[in-house]
Amino acid sequence: MNAPATGTGTIYGLGLGPGDPDLMSLRAHRLLGAARNVAYFRKAGRRGQARKIVDGLIHAEAAEWPLEYPVTTEIPVTDPRYNQLLAQFYEDGTARLVDLSRKGEDVVVLCEGDPFFYGSFMHLHARLQGVVPVEVIPAITGMSGAWTATGTPVTWGDDVLTVLMGTLPESELVRRMSDTDALVVMKIGRNFDKVRRALRQAGLYDRAWLIEYAQMPNQSVMPLAQAGDRVAPYFSIIVVHGQGRRP
Amino acid sequence: MNAPATGTGTIYGLGLGPGDPDLMSLRAHRLLGAARNVAYFRKAGRRGQARKIVDGLIHAEAAEWPLEYPVTTEIPVTDPRYNQLLAQFYEDGTARLVDLSRKGEDVVVLCEGDPFFYGSFMHLHARLQGVVPVEVIPAITGMSGAWTATGTPVTWGDDVLTVLMGTLPESELVRRMSDTDALVVMKIGRNFDKVRRALRQAGLYDRAWLIEYAQMPNQSVMPLAQAGDRVAPYFSIIVVHGQGRRP
Ligand SMILES: C[S@@+](CC[C@H](N)C(=O)[O-])C[C@H]1O[C@@H](n2cnc3c(N)ncnc32)[C@H](O)[C@@H]1O
Ligand SMILES: C[S@@+](CC[C@H](N)C(=O)[O-])C[C@H]1O[C@@H](n2cnc3c(N)ncnc32)[C@H](O)[C@@H]1O
Repeated sequence: MNAPATGTGTIYGLGLGPGDPDLMSLRAHRLLGAARNVAYFRKAGRRGQARKIVDGLIHAEAAEWPLEYPVTTEIPVTDPRYNQLLAQFYEDGTARLVDLSRKGEDVVVLCEGDPFFYGSFMHLHARLQGVVPVEVIPAITGMSGAWTATGTPVTWGDDVLTVLMGTLPESELVRRMSDTDALVVMKIGRNFDKVRRALRQAGLYDRAWLIEYAQMPNQSVMPLAQAGDRVAPYFSIIVVHGQGRRP
Repeated sequence: MNAPATGTGTIYGLGLGPGDPDLMSLRAHRLLGAARNVAYFRKAGRRGQARKIVDGLIHAEAAEWPLEYPVTTEIPVTDPRYNQLLAQFYEDGTARLVDLSRKGEDVVVLCEGDPFFYGSFMHLHARLQGVVPVEVIPAITGMSGAWTATGTPVTWGDDVLTVLMGTLPESELVRRMSDTDALVVMKIGRNFDKVRRALRQAGLYDRAWLIEYAQMPNQSVMPLAQAGDRVAPYFSIIVVHGQGRRP
């Protein structure tokens, strides 16, 4: 059972960093160890990446609140039902957190990487703001974890860094890849072939690195050209290092 | 005195995050507390931002190795002497670290933010690699600290994020600012007026936020339009939030 609480609880968007618990911030680690309510996103039937990161770190008496995505790959993003289903899912999640907060419970919502950088928690945050107290703990992004894993700095001097999602149309990827010094591509997974074609057209293919599961036990780092017919998982990032001024 | 050591020491590029010691990673905190040699960059006559962050956190018996920049604002970046002076400075710093390593000493080099993201340590890293053991500890970037401080997520859905240095020419700033969803501008300081003019021309001025000293005790967050004739310090970041798909 949770300890009795009074007043209004705070909802924490807790950034965990790229995957290694040792890369969590002191603040995140402390909040996590004290939390009596731990919420996290996951796909139905999966444990959830964020929940995996904190294995063994959450309090024995903590209540867990998994938020299970209603859709993953079944409905195309362009289908209006996709947005409706997701909106309802975020409404339901928000209602659950508001309810806990009004019962005086603090809740820690686990976030992979940095919560405000392409994170799912943002959809709860937008709905919670102004309703109950919300606090966000920044964290190391997946891309920092990824470029560190390559052993080479990502940006020098005046380098321009462009961050692209693999979900963008191929022509848009090519156009933007062709006009940047350093590049990060996220959300690879099913977009892998499209992203590779775009990198080829932009002339960046031979400089690109593929990092899977950055800073996790199953991390893999390789030049993209060596990936062959490998299937890139959801937790993959492509990095092209900048080559700017270096005295 | 330092404890006697044998073998070859490791040089750690230790990412400290944006400024609040509580946002340091568990790994960085542990390495820092154990370090008997602590090196850091600073301008002559200053304490140095990275050194300030760790005040009270380094070991009483640790030797400190300040690396003092030979130039700051005296010589224009375009002057060839600027590059020569800096190159010599990095060579000297490298020699000092190699010497310590060969005496068997581990050295922690303090890095503001993430070491591989526009960091000074990169210039030592490039020279140390393959010579002595080097390890880099990723950290929360200044920009994560900055957008978290605004209380609003920076990127949604398919948003393109562009990171620009205020040192770029005005026309280049305008062109790139006009063609992105979300924007981060770093190295503001003396480029503040130029960056503001560029934001106006790109139509982003009214959506821009100015964050000074993100996650430091003197943090300040305001809409850029309210900055008036304020002088933006070196530790300033401008953020324009993306407005992508949000179910
Ligand atoms: C919904 S976004 C979440 C980003 C996260 N908030 C961050 O700060 O990195 C998911 C994408 O992040 C990338 N990603 C995040 N962490 C990663 C890691 N440790 N290794 C590889 N890719 C990662 C992958 O490209 C993935 O498709
Ligand atoms: C040489 S770059 C170092 C960047 C650093 N390695 C990082 O990961 O953020 C220095 C620039 O970073 C930005 N910066 C870094 N940390 C900051 C902070 N806490 N607050 C405001 N600006 C910051 C400023 O724009 C500054 O001009």
